[in-house]
Amino acid sequence: MSPKVDWKAKAAAKAAAIFDAIPDSWRIPEPIPTVDAQRDITGPYLHKYLTGDEIEITETNAVGIVKKVADGEWHAETVVRAFCHRAALAHQYISCLHEVFFDAAIEDAVALDEYYRQHGKPIGPLHGLPVSLKDQMHVKGVETTMGYVGWIGTFQGKQGSGLEKQFESEIVTELRGLGAVLYCKTSVPQTLMSAETMNNIIGYTFNPKNRNLSSGGSSGGEGALISLRGSPIGLGTDYSGSIRMPAAFNGLYGIRSSSGRLPYQGMANSMDGQNTVLSVVGPMSHSPADLGLMLESILSRQPWLHDPAVVEMPWRPDIVQATEELVHSGQRLVFGMISCDGVVQPHPPILRALALVREALNSQGHGLMDWAPPSHKRAVDIVQTCWLYDGGADVHQSFGLSGEPIAEQIGRIYSSQAREQMSASAIARNNVAKRDYQKEYMEYWNSTSETSGTGRPVEAVIMPAGEAAATRQGCATYGGYATALSALDWTVITIPISTVDKNVDSVDSSFSPLSDFDTRVQQGYIPEIYDGAHVSLQLLGRRFQEEKLLVLADYIGKTVAAYVSTSGGKK
Amino acid sequence: MSPKVDWKAKAAAKAAAIFDAIPDSWRIPEPIPTVDAQRDITGPYLHKYLTGDEIEITETNAVGIVKKVADGEWHAETVVRAFCHRAALAHQYISCLHEVFFDAAIEDAVALDEYYRQHGKPIGPLHGLPVSLKDQMHVKGVETTMGYVGWIGTFQGKQGSGLEKQFESEIVTELRGLGAVLYCKTSVPQTLMSAETMNNIIGYTFNPKNRNLSSGGSSGGEGALISLRGSPIGLGTDYSGSIRMPAAFNGLYGIRSSSGRLPYQGMANSMDGQNTVLSVVGPMSHSPADLGLMLESILSRQPWLHDPAVVEMPWRPDIVQATEELVHSGQRLVFGMISCDGVVQPHPPILRALALVREALNSQGHGLMDWAPPSHKRAVDIVQTCWLYDGGADVHQSFGLSGEPIAEQIGRIYSSQAREQMSASAIARNNVAKRDYQKEYMEYWNSTSETSGTGRPVEAVIMPAGEAAATRQGCATYGGYATALSALDWTVITIPISTVDKNVDSVDSSFSPLSDFDTRVQQGYIPEIYDGAHVSLQLLGRRFQEEKLLVLADYIGKTVAAYVSTSGGKK
Repeated sequence: MSPKVDWKAKAAAKAAAIFDAIPDSWRIPEPIPTVDAQRDITGPYLHKYLTGDEIEITETNAVGIVKKVADGEWHAETVVRAFCHRAALAHQYISCLHEVFFDAAIEDAVALDEYYRQHGKPIGPLHGLPVSLKDQMHVKGVETTMGYVGWIGTFQGKQGSGLEKQFESEIVTELRGLGAVLYCKTSVPQTLMSAETMNNIIGYTFNPKNRNLSSGGSSGGEGALISLRGSPIGLGTDYSGSIRMPAAFNGLYGIRSSSGRLPYQGMANSMDGQNTVLSVVGPMSHSPADLGLMLESILSRQPWLHDPAVVEMPWRPDIVQATEELVHSGQRLVFGMISCDGVVQPHPPILRALALVREALNSQGHGLMDWAPPSHKRAVDIVQTCWLYDGGADVHQSFGLSGEPIAEQIGRIYSSQAREQMSASAIARNNVAKRDYQKEYMEYWNSTSETSGTGRPVEAVIMPAGEAAATRQGCATYGGYATALSALDWTVITIPISTVDKNVDSVDSSFSPLSDFDTRVQQGYIPEIYDGAHVSLQLLGRRFQEEKLLVLADYIGKTVAAYVSTSGGKK
Repeated sequence: MSPKVDWKAKAAAKAAAIFDAIPDSWRIPEPIPTVDAQRDITGPYLHKYLTGDEIEITETNAVGIVKKVADGEWHAETVVRAFCHRAALAHQYISCLHEVFFDAAIEDAVALDEYYRQHGKPIGPLHGLPVSLKDQMHVKGVETTMGYVGWIGTFQGKQGSGLEKQFESEIVTELRGLGAVLYCKTSVPQTLMSAETMNNIIGYTFNPKNRNLSSGGSSGGEGALISLRGSPIGLGTDYSGSIRMPAAFNGLYGIRSSSGRLPYQGMANSMDGQNTVLSVVGPMSHSPADLGLMLESILSRQPWLHDPAVVEMPWRPDIVQATEELVHSGQRLVFGMISCDGVVQPHPPILRALALVREALNSQGHGLMDWAPPSHKRAVDIVQTCWLYDGGADVHQSFGLSGEPIAEQIGRIYSSQAREQMSASAIARNNVAKRDYQKEYMEYWNSTSETSGTGRPVEAVIMPAGEAAATRQGCATYGGYATALSALDWTVITIPISTVDKNVDSVDSSFSPLSDFDTRVQQGYIPEIYDGAHVSLQLLGRRFQEEKLLVLADYIGKTVAAYVSTSGGKK
């Protein structure tokens, strides 16, 4: 059979294999309700399929889970079975899984319980914690398709390398060493180059909080699965916003650490070897504490000994402590804030979230400074130039393996066939442009120590993670709020702030467009369609400031929540 | 006048301007002796032109100088005048200076003395220390030609940018803040891409220890000047060996730190924006303690706040202390050793230096393990591929500004005109090849914990810095011993070990060539010509292990010296 003509059969077989790995008893007997019948499937909606124990376990955060298991209150096996069950339910609603390996996970969990029984203590800081993985990470015994039909049955599109289902990405090995249990891999868009998640194998991953909307991309499967509590914590990757957009759209905390902090070694990727702007790996979860647990645990493994790109920078508890002391000192803190990047104006719910954060921080005596850095448009241009260094040669090579069709969202970037490659001189110019931009941005940051009134530069900068609460299939998407920050390679964390309320977040009748594109993006906002969606922002700090940013994100999240509950602010 | 036809006049005028900046009283009245009459001009040879105070000052290491000045025993002005004088003498012998700004230096020194008088303490840890700079670093008030005739009167070849003599490189600003005094910039080869130093402005920078030989490149002016004690410490840069070869050839310690440790921001460079293998900046001096002083001082300025490529990694005294304790604990240490990289066999004096180090370390109970890492030839290929990403477009653009001729050593690499550029896909493949190589190398390193007998991997690896004691004009040069390590981006330090003795270091009559090229390189070794030259090795450690490597280099240097003096070993 020619691979080129039979992509449909291959894709269908793969989709069926994913479904077949779900035990019969976990199949949903009734038809999946329409969006109109059931827009939001998060929260209690899935409870009807779950036992009380399963609900309790799956609605406990990662930090709580590892504590319960370490204390001997929960068995790893019980925890893992509960998440496998809920993940199986999630997939049936929103097509968020690429690989399902529950049996191996349960076997691993049983072995961990046995270890605990014998030694009376956990094997590592993540003992018994289920961790979901974006389908770029190679797991022994499991395939990686990255959403390409042509990668089915291969190792990254190559036949006969002997690496198929044998090779394991560095971070996966580290997770195992920490006691984490791996049980599924999550959906991604073709090529990874989209803020929506769709491919010819699993279709489209909708947003479980509002199934009119996208779960984001490219770590869209992660975002959706964690949002549905089918996973307590998962690893995504972020090249131009691919952790931040799905985290934001799904109401999660997600951290884009600086490249070189966490191990990316041995992952599948698009355009591997493009090294102007690097994709980074990072966790997504329901709390900053969970993200901190993951970072601290991974760094405890000294990944710089096994990934040449990782910098020898251990977890720094002194920075955590100093930041904790700062935020609880009663001192005035000053943050930067961007409401509009000058290219595309955020939708009304995003603007309301910014106002809410401003009020909440002001109520605690903190200041917000208008952030006027070197143009974010320049940064977006630098990142988008990288996308096309090879003119699409890499992604078209992968499409060509099967002859599968290219999604409209991807065709917009990569056209229907590969184009001319950029020259070495042009690439070098873009590298210099990036360095110059980073230098100007850092000096702008430094300069705010003169104007902040605290004697320090701003603590961090708050801004939209996307122009919309979430992307929508078929609508104009910008993505520049997330993409711009990739040029900096600084630390960024998303913070869930509120939800769309169609009765409050009206269409802005006084909207004055910056461009035709701005108009088209704004037209995508329809209160009725967006009602109920998560609204999140992102927090930017300097390079390698993961420890500081996690404390600040936690503080801001809690300050907003406290403000809403005590002052009657509208969340 | 057309710049293209008049490159000779421009170059001659520039050379005359350099010479004219030397005060009449410091001119050497008699003709410079021939090499046969005076091969070695280091040591006491220049004493005849200097006062006793000038000799004492200029033969004091950097650590000693800053102590004397901080203690008020020496004035910064006296120190700076002494080094200006000796640098002026050096240039007249070996053409090692591109820029001479003694007047500005003396003015700065006077201001520092005034500060000291007023405050009773130094302004910073380098208060009053003269520091020489390779001519890639921009200094306010001073030109940067980088050896290109076409750059004279411009800013990096561009007219009218307003940056000429105004812009300052980040590290230069940091040095000023630390109290260092800048007084000269040193010679480089055209394009920086040579292990010899020659250009159409200053001619050729010979090796002051043996004027038959080259001072190395591309930081050849630094190596020669510091060797002659015309500078106590200087900053070079290293892309493919450009600190290590001149440091080795001139009997100096020179450190190639990992990229991202020290600030390269705002320097002139060749092929700027090539970012597979990055050039790094680092000090060269007579002792590891001097290098440590420089690194610790620069890092105390938090350069990561002003250079986007610098990692937030402060100087780590705990690593220094742990390594000091290790080497003085009496424990057995195990080092790797490479005698031949499988491509080119080192000359007899290098092999004798390796044997000497082995004996010296063995005498202290330490072990040497044959180092058999992933092929260094692969690493050399990766680095050399980077040289030609743009097919020579950048360097030919600079040559084209003046029409000056291309040196034979450079023409070998870049031909007489620019060639086809490499594609983005080819560049990406080289990036992946580099990452794969680094990964394999680090795992090989890790694996030695199984075989070292100490339970740890090797402490460091000792190997030739070059195949020869020094390069020779017109002779075949390999350079791969230094170049290979640039693909790793690990920490490397040169260690002076011995000198060539024609009576001991005979031509190897049993030499069995690995290739025709190996034969040609070996034929360059003529004991009579090389007699007296410095012989140095390099010490390799993991990425960002600057603190550890400096302690180990000091220990090895002292262990060899003690062995030679007590056991009658031949130095």
